[in-house]
Amino acid sequence: MSELTHFDDQGQAHMVDVSAKPDTVRVAVAQGRIRMLADTLALVREGRAGKGDVLGVARIAAIQGAKRTADLIPLCHPLALSKVAVAFELDEVDVAVVCRVTVQTTGPTGVEMEALTAVQVGLLTVYDMLKAADRGMVITDVALLEKQGGRSGHWVRGG
Amino acid sequence: MSELTHFDDQGQAHMVDVSAKPDTVRVAVAQGRIRMLADTLALVREGRAGKGDVLGVARIAAIQGAKRTADLIPLCHPLALSKVAVAFELDEVDVAVVCRVTVQTTGPTGVEMEALTAVQVGLLTVYDMLKAADRGMVITDVALLEKQGGRSGHWVRGG
Amino acid sequence: MSELTHFDDQGQAHMVDVSAKPDTVRVAVAQGRIRMLADTLALVREGRAGKGDVLGVARIAAIQGAKRTADLIPLCHPLALSKVAVAFELDEVDVAVVCRVTVQTTGPTGVEMEALTAVQVGLLTVYDMLKAADRGMVITDVALLEKQGGRSGHWVRGG
Amino acid sequence: MSELTHFDDQGQAHMVDVSAKPDTVRVAVAQGRIRMLADTLALVREGRAGKGDVLGVARIAAIQGAKRTADLIPLCHPLALSKVAVAFELDEVDVAVVCRVTVQTTGPTGVEMEALTAVQVGLLTVYDMLKAADRGMVITDVALLEKQGGRSGHWVRGG
Amino acid sequence: MSELTHFDDQGQAHMVDVSAKPDTVRVAVAQGRIRMLADTLALVREGRAGKGDVLGVARIAAIQGAKRTADLIPLCHPLALSKVAVAFELDEVDVAVVCRVTVQTTGPTGVEMEALTAVQVGLLTVYDMLKAADRGMVITDVALLEKQGGRSGHWVRGG
Amino acid sequence: MSELTHFDDQGQAHMVDVSAKPDTVRVAVAQGRIRMLADTLALVREGRAGKGDVLGVARIAAIQGAKRTADLIPLCHPLALSKVAVAFELDEVDVAVVCRVTVQTTGPTGVEMEALTAVQVGLLTVYDMLKAADRGMVITDVALLEKQGGRSGHWVRGG
Repeated sequence: MSELTHFDDQGQAHMVDVSAKPDTVRVAVAQGRIRMLADTLALVREGRAGKGDVLGVARIAAIQGAKRTADLIPLCHPLALSKVAVAFELDEVDVAVVCRVTVQTTGPTGVEMEALTAVQVGLLTVYDMLKAADRGMVITDVALLEKQGGRSGHWVRGG
Repeated sequence: MSELTHFDDQGQAHMVDVSAKPDTVRVAVAQGRIRMLADTLALVREGRAGKGDVLGVARIAAIQGAKRTADLIPLCHPLALSKVAVAFELDEVDVAVVCRVTVQTTGPTGVEMEALTAVQVGLLTVYDMLKAADRGMVITDVALLEKQGGRSGHWVRGG
Repeated sequence: MSELTHFDDQGQAHMVDVSAKPDTVRVAVAQGRIRMLADTLALVREGRAGKGDVLGVARIAAIQGAKRTADLIPLCHPLALSKVAVAFELDEVDVAVVCRVTVQTTGPTGVEMEALTAVQVGLLTVYDMLKAADRGMVITDVALLEKQGGRSGHWVRGG
Repeated sequence: MSELTHFDDQGQAHMVDVSAKPDTVRVAVAQGRIRMLADTLALVREGRAGKGDVLGVARIAAIQGAKRTADLIPLCHPLALSKVAVAFELDEVDVAVVCRVTVQTTGPTGVEMEALTAVQVGLLTVYDMLKAADRGMVITDVALLEKQGGRSGHWVRGG
Repeated sequence: MSELTHFDDQGQAHMVDVSAKPDTVRVAVAQGRIRMLADTLALVREGRAGKGDVLGVARIAAIQGAKRTADLIPLCHPLALSKVAVAFELDEVDVAVVCRVTVQTTGPTGVEMEALTAVQVGLLTVYDMLKAADRGMVITDVALLEKQGGRSGHWVRGG
Repeated sequence: MSELTHFDDQGQAHMVDVSAKPDTVRVAVAQGRIRMLADTLALVREGRAGKGDVLGVARIAAIQGAKRTADLIPLCHPLALSKVAVAFELDEVDVAVVCRVTVQTTGPTGVEMEALTAVQVGLLTVYDMLKAADRGMVITDVALLEKQGGRSGHWVRGG
């Protein structure tokens, strides 16, 4: 069990001691997508033009979601985030909305969970706002893209 | 914009009026999966045998996540849930952990968002507990499987 | 002290017993405004045109604020809200943004506090987003406009 | 849109990057008032004398409100507050309760929003506790009085 | 494992289905105490006389704690409480502060956990406010005194 | 009232100013127990063997409870915890489950309240999961065992 730091020697879950780790600048970028019908994606596109701004609502939810991470994920350390940025993009080929979140802090632990949680809350909010039109949407490909800071240095997906 | 009930005539977001909708029994089932390395899945399997119970922790997080849905998703109505059940399964072929959540209430609105939110929080917690071993895990195929109750009746994915 | 229902015979605060009160439809409308410099109001007007949508963000905050009322106000009963609608208006004469919130529920207690809390959180969010340009803004005239349902019947401000 | 730091170049809301800003001592003082009938103010005065302590309850709510600021205001950074003090005063001439809050932290961003949020939650709690006697109360004149620390230095209202 | 309703047939934790249980009036009374030095109890007694009202603060915390129960206790159902009353008493013989909480709802599940959680949060707040004077205080004898409503009828401790 | 730092000169509650206190490593250890029937303790023992893991659920609740302390205890400062560890033990002689929690942070205030809150939430969760079998359980002997860091140095119970 030595690889799983969230468990102690007896295999019991704990919030691992990070008091000896120095404060460094930490950045994490996560991304995910929600696939939908072409007609549904058209509704999102129209909303961007000024009425029914689905992505504007989802962006706020994603930012607030990042701040709730330690509340939602039992063994996460509470962190004072110094930046959260959320970008949405329409992927017309895959017929999907893509959500990418960048989170930054200066602290002893990384912010992967904050970035991933923000992506998930953002995509769930997109689902919520469009579900009256399209119940079959699928949230998929939610993953960490990049991570900087801390002992493990700079990690890039597929890098 | 007539299809998107979360916006009013002017395209402004609102929490839609459900006071005229009768209380009925509502059930929603949602599912998702997290793909990982074979060695990582082996750690989860071992944990089941008594030490480092990743899925036990994730199950609790998922249940609590269901209760936080209205806090996270801006236009969701707060609901008094009457049941939340979380099942995890190891998919050895796809090399993934599958999370399936069933939520039930008696009320004026459905519980799709609660079921989907629970799945996402459950899978995020699995990611958190295993990320020291495998940073590249991907959360995918998160979707509604089934929905009962309310005006739209019984809906089954692909049905 | 007989007029203050939030205290018992000994003058101690309590959450008053509402179990004997029937569930009825309750509506409350509250309103408030934030006064600012003319240049600041111009920034809000521009944002409406598509970039920097101050009021779109504040609307979401107000709706979520309504759902947090029982968390914030110690003696409020938790309530399952059935509707929250937030309208913003620019008052060019008074050089102010006006926020009006309508909340509805079916339950044993009124929703004045939910409507007022939503107005306050909405106006605070407007302040937050504009404070880099205008630190001197004033939130003012926050009051209940109308209330329906329950023993006290229909009340209209100044009516 | 250059003046509004809460939006990026594309006019999208984000939680602005403060990682390059040094930690300094920050203080903010905010104030607001709630106007009421003379008989209602008399109830508050009596409560002070030992029974039905309206202001004691509102003070606690205000302090807890300060701690919830980042939860309520979407683009606020979470902050570890080092001091929150709440003073109430009866203004017999204006027939109002005045609430003044001082908040302090050592960090990269100011605490105006924390002080203003505390004032609002404090005044909303006063409203809640007195509303059975006086539904027409008005919360008004909520504004920042003073701010110290950070790049903008010492700012005093009307100074 | 048949006696523990919070686990399913496989021994997995779940939020048990209460949708078939009728709404009935439910009452629970819980009590606990915190033992302290005689000098510390004297500080509490003085505070009652008008300055430093320890019990006034703890009463508010206890009421708010009751509302947070489903957030804190993983398998608790969220409930709309209809009454929370908190009584403190000084036990001069045992040199302790006694906290007794009564909670009421109309719903499908009991409110024991809400009453017990309120007692614990109330007593923890007393500890917090007095700890500068007396670090050795002990919280003890926290138990359910009485329970009404539901299938199990009227239960009285030691009855 | 000079001994009670949570009140100012006028006896009003406030969140005391800690901005002048240096950040030091702080550790607190708290403990408590829940007494039950011998048959109930047997259920806990069985659960440990793989099915119905009462203590696994309670451990997660305790850790999350530590993170909610500043939300629950009105005058507590919010803190970024660097470690939370929860140990359960079965006391076969006293017929009780013992819960011991260690919390650590680097900051200006101690973490006694976080450790005590975690113990209480952990024991409340044990009560919740076993109450169908044994309503008469008693939570008792909840106290601080040890405290390090800060001006008061190293304190050990009974030391």
